[in-house]
Amino acid sequence: MAERFEIVEKALLSLLDDKKYTTLRDILVTMNPSDIAGLFDALEEQRIPVLYRLLPKELAAETFVEMEPDAQELLIKGFSDNELKEVLDELYVDDAADLVEEMPANVVKRILKHADPEMRKAINQILRYEDNSAGSIMTTEYVSLRPHMTVGEAILRIRRQGVDKETIYTCYVTDTSRKLLGMVTVKDLLLADDDDTPIQDIMITNVIFASTSTDQEEVARMLSKYNFLAMPVLDSESRMVGIVTFDDAMDVMEEEATEDIEMMAGMTPSEKPYLKNTPFELFRNRFPWLSMMMVSATFTGLIMTAFEDALAQVIALSAFIPMLMGTGGNSGSQSSVTVIRGLSLGELKFRDIGEVLWKELRTAVLCGLGLAVVCFAKIWLIDRMLFGNTEITLMVDLVVCCALCVTVIIAKAVGAVLPMVAKVLGADPAVMASPFITTIVDAVSLLVYFLFAKLILGL
Amino acid sequence: MAERFEIVEKALLSLLDDKKYTTLRDILVTMNPSDIAGLFDALEEQRIPVLYRLLPKELAAETFVEMEPDAQELLIKGFSDNELKEVLDELYVDDAADLVEEMPANVVKRILKHADPEMRKAINQILRYEDNSAGSIMTTEYVSLRPHMTVGEAILRIRRQGVDKETIYTCYVTDTSRKLLGMVTVKDLLLADDDDTPIQDIMITNVIFASTSTDQEEVARMLSKYNFLAMPVLDSESRMVGIVTFDDAMDVMEEEATEDIEMMAGMTPSEKPYLKNTPFELFRNRFPWLSMMMVSATFTGLIMTAFEDALAQVIALSAFIPMLMGTGGNSGSQSSVTVIRGLSLGELKFRDIGEVLWKELRTAVLCGLGLAVVCFAKIWLIDRMLFGNTEITLMVDLVVCCALCVTVIIAKAVGAVLPMVAKVLGADPAVMASPFITTIVDAVSLLVYFLFAKLILGL
Repeated sequence: MAERFEIVEKALLSLLDDKKYTTLRDILVTMNPSDIAGLFDALEEQRIPVLYRLLPKELAAETFVEMEPDAQELLIKGFSDNELKEVLDELYVDDAADLVEEMPANVVKRILKHADPEMRKAINQILRYEDNSAGSIMTTEYVSLRPHMTVGEAILRIRRQGVDKETIYTCYVTDTSRKLLGMVTVKDLLLADDDDTPIQDIMITNVIFASTSTDQEEVARMLSKYNFLAMPVLDSESRMVGIVTFDDAMDVMEEEATEDIEMMAGMTPSEKPYLKNTPFELFRNRFPWLSMMMVSATFTGLIMTAFEDALAQVIALSAFIPMLMGTGGNSGSQSSVTVIRGLSLGELKFRDIGEVLWKELRTAVLCGLGLAVVCFAKIWLIDRMLFGNTEITLMVDLVVCCALCVTVIIAKAVGAVLPMVAKVLGADPAVMASPFITTIVDAVSLLVYFLFAKLILGL
Repeated sequence: MAERFEIVEKALLSLLDDKKYTTLRDILVTMNPSDIAGLFDALEEQRIPVLYRLLPKELAAETFVEMEPDAQELLIKGFSDNELKEVLDELYVDDAADLVEEMPANVVKRILKHADPEMRKAINQILRYEDNSAGSIMTTEYVSLRPHMTVGEAILRIRRQGVDKETIYTCYVTDTSRKLLGMVTVKDLLLADDDDTPIQDIMITNVIFASTSTDQEEVARMLSKYNFLAMPVLDSESRMVGIVTFDDAMDVMEEEATEDIEMMAGMTPSEKPYLKNTPFELFRNRFPWLSMMMVSATFTGLIMTAFEDALAQVIALSAFIPMLMGTGGNSGSQSSVTVIRGLSLGELKFRDIGEVLWKELRTAVLCGLGLAVVCFAKIWLIDRMLFGNTEITLMVDLVVCCALCVTVIIAKAVGAVLPMVAKVLGADPAVMASPFITTIVDAVSLLVYFLFAKLILGL
C-alpha cells in the first residue's frame, strides 16, 4: 500500500515537471486530501504554490489543513486576500485555531483580519484556553437540538445545518441558556420508530462530558474508553461550548505516547516529525539532558574514588562494575517504564502505590535471586574456568552475586515509586524514567557492592 | 472526574453489601457500560454474578463486552444455556470473536454451540485470520448499498437494517459479487439535495481499503491519518469481507504504543493491564531479558580485564568508566528511541536511512563536542580543584573527553541504524532499543577509552 503510493507520488511529480497540469488535476481530484498534502512535503518551495493552485477550491482547503506548517506559512504569504478568505471559509474552527497557533505574528494578523467575524470570535475563544486542555483542541461547531423537537424536526435541522459541522453524528440537546440536557445520535434518530417522538423521550440524559480545562490526554482516554465519536466540553458555568471529536483524540493519543517515549529516553519532546527537525534542533532537545546526566555521574565517580584502595587490592572487582550497574539500571527501567505507561493509560492511580510497590518487591526478589544464581554460575564457568581468571575466587563471585541481588531489588523499588511520587507532585512521571533512576541506581549499586566487598572480603 | 467516580464506585458497592438491590439497579441503568464493567474489577469472585444479574438484558451484554477476561470466564461458567444465548445475541461479531480468542477451550466450545449459525460462521471466519491482522480485528457487520439505489432508498435501508450494525455512518456500495464499488456516508445521504439521486452519483469511488492480511497497526495508522470512522477490509479476491472501526483502531494504537515501550525497556510485552499481572508473570516477562543483557556484559568485563594493567597504573581512569558508559548509552537510546517511534508512526521508511544517518551524525558531532567541553571543565573544576584529586592530570582529563566525544558519535550512529536494519530484516525495531544497543555501546566506549589512554598517556 505504502509502496504503491510512493510510485504514484513519483508519477505525479513528474507530471508537474512536464507541466501536464490538466492530467495532473484530473488525478488529484480523485485523491484524498492527506495524500495530496503528502505530495507537498517532497516539493521544493517554489513549486508548492504551482501545485496548490491546480486544486479545486474545496479540495484545496481540505488539503491545506493536512499540510506541514512551513508549507502553510509559505502559501499564506503568497495568497491574495481573496484566496486567503476562501481557504478560511472552508476551514473548521478548530483547524483554523491550530493554524493561528502555528503561524508567526504577522501571518496571524492577516488570518484574523480575513476570517469572518463569527469565525474570528470562535478562534479567539479557543485560543484563550490553556495548551493541552480540552478547550484548546475542541471545535465550537456542533449540532444542537432542543428537547421538545420531534425526531423528524431534528433530522430536518441536521439536514439544513449539517454542512458546516465537523461531526453531525452526535447531537447535543441544550436549553436556551446552553445548559446540556442530553445527547442523541443520528443512529438513534434514524432508527426511531416514530418521527413524531420528542427528542427528550429518546435522548440519553446522563451525558459524560469534559470541562474546558480537562487535560487533552484525559479527554482522549475517555473517548477511547467509551468508544465515543465526540465528547461535549462544558465551561465553568456548565454551559456547552464545544466538542472534541475522535480524530483529534487519536492525534492526541499518538502525540502523548510519542512525548512519553521521548521523555523516558531523556529528550525534550519535539513538536515536529523526525525528518523535519534540523540537527541543531535535535541537539537542543538532547544535549541538556545528556550533560545533566553526565554531571550527575560525578557521584558514582566520587564513590569509586573513595573505594580506590579496595579496588586496587582486588583488581578483579572492577571488571564487574559495568555489569552490576547495567543490570541495576535495566531492572529499574523495566519497573519505571511499566508504571509510567500504567499512569499514562489511567490504569494506575496514586492510591495504588502500596499494591504496586508490593507487586514490584515480590517481582524484584524473584528477579534478584534468579539473576544472582545465573550470575554466580556464569562467573564461575565463563570468567573463572573458561577464561582462567584466577583472581576470581569463590568469595569474589559471592560478593558480586549478593550485590547484584540487592541492587535489583532496590532498583525495582525506586523505579516503581519515583514515577508515582512525581505524578502526585504534579510533575510528568515520564521525566522520572530511565535516566534519573539510573543515576540513583548507579550510585546505590556501587555502595552496595563495596559494602559486600567489605563484609565478605574484609577490605 | 476520575475521583468523583471512585466515590460513586464505593457508594454502589456498599449498596450491594446492604442488599439494596432495587436502588442499585436504578442507579446502574443510568451508567455507562464501561463504568459498570469497572465496578466488577473491584469485586470478589462470588459477588460478580450477583451484581451482574441486576443488570437489564441489553445493558448486561454491553457491560459484559467491557469486562476483563477473568470476570467474563467466571460469568460464562455460571450462565445457564439460555443466559449465554442472550448475551451472545447482543454481542457484535468482532466482540464475540475477541471473547472466543480469550477463553479456554471448553468455554469456547460452549460459546460456539450457543451462538446462532450466522454468528458462528462469522466468528470462525474472523478467527481464521492471523493475529494482529486487519482480518482478526474487523467486524463482518456493515451496511452495504447497491449503486442504483436512490438516496431515499438508502436511508430507508439503513433505518431497517441498522440496528445490528456496529457503525452505520459509513456505508459501502458493492455489486452482487461483493466487489467494492464505492463509499457513501450518512452525512452525504442526509445532506443530499434530492432524495431521488442514485447512490452512484454521490458515492466516492476511490475508496481507501485494507486487505485482511494488512497489519492492524497499519490499519490504525491509516484510519488516524484519513480521519475515517471505518475502513473496509477486502479479501485476496477483492471482495469486501468486513470493516475496522475507529474504536478498534484506537485500542490498537494504544496497545501497540505500550508494546513498543515495553520492548524498548527490555521486557516481553504483557497482554494484561499492570495490576492484573501476578509477580510471577512480571518476572517471566522481565527475567529472560535481564539475564541476557547481564551475560552480554561479559564482553565489557573481558575488555576491562584485558586492560587491568593500564587501569592499575592510572587508577583515576576507572572512576570515569561509569560516566563514559552511561553517557554513551543515553546518547544511543535517544537516537534509537526516536528512530523506532518514527518507524512505528510510519514517518520513517527504510529508504530514509541515508538521511537519518546523516542527520544523526551531525547531531552526534554537536552533542559529542558539547559534552566533551562540559566534561573537560567539570572534571577540572569539580574533581580536580574542588575535591582535590591530584591523580587527575590534564592528560587524563583529555583522554576522558576525547573518548566521550567519539563514544557519543558512535553510539548515535549505532542507535539510529540498528532499528532500521531490524525493520528491513523483518524484526521488530523496538527490540533493538536501549538494552541491545547499550551492550554494543558499552563495549565500544571501553575500547575507545583504552585506545585514547594508550595514545595520550602511552600506557
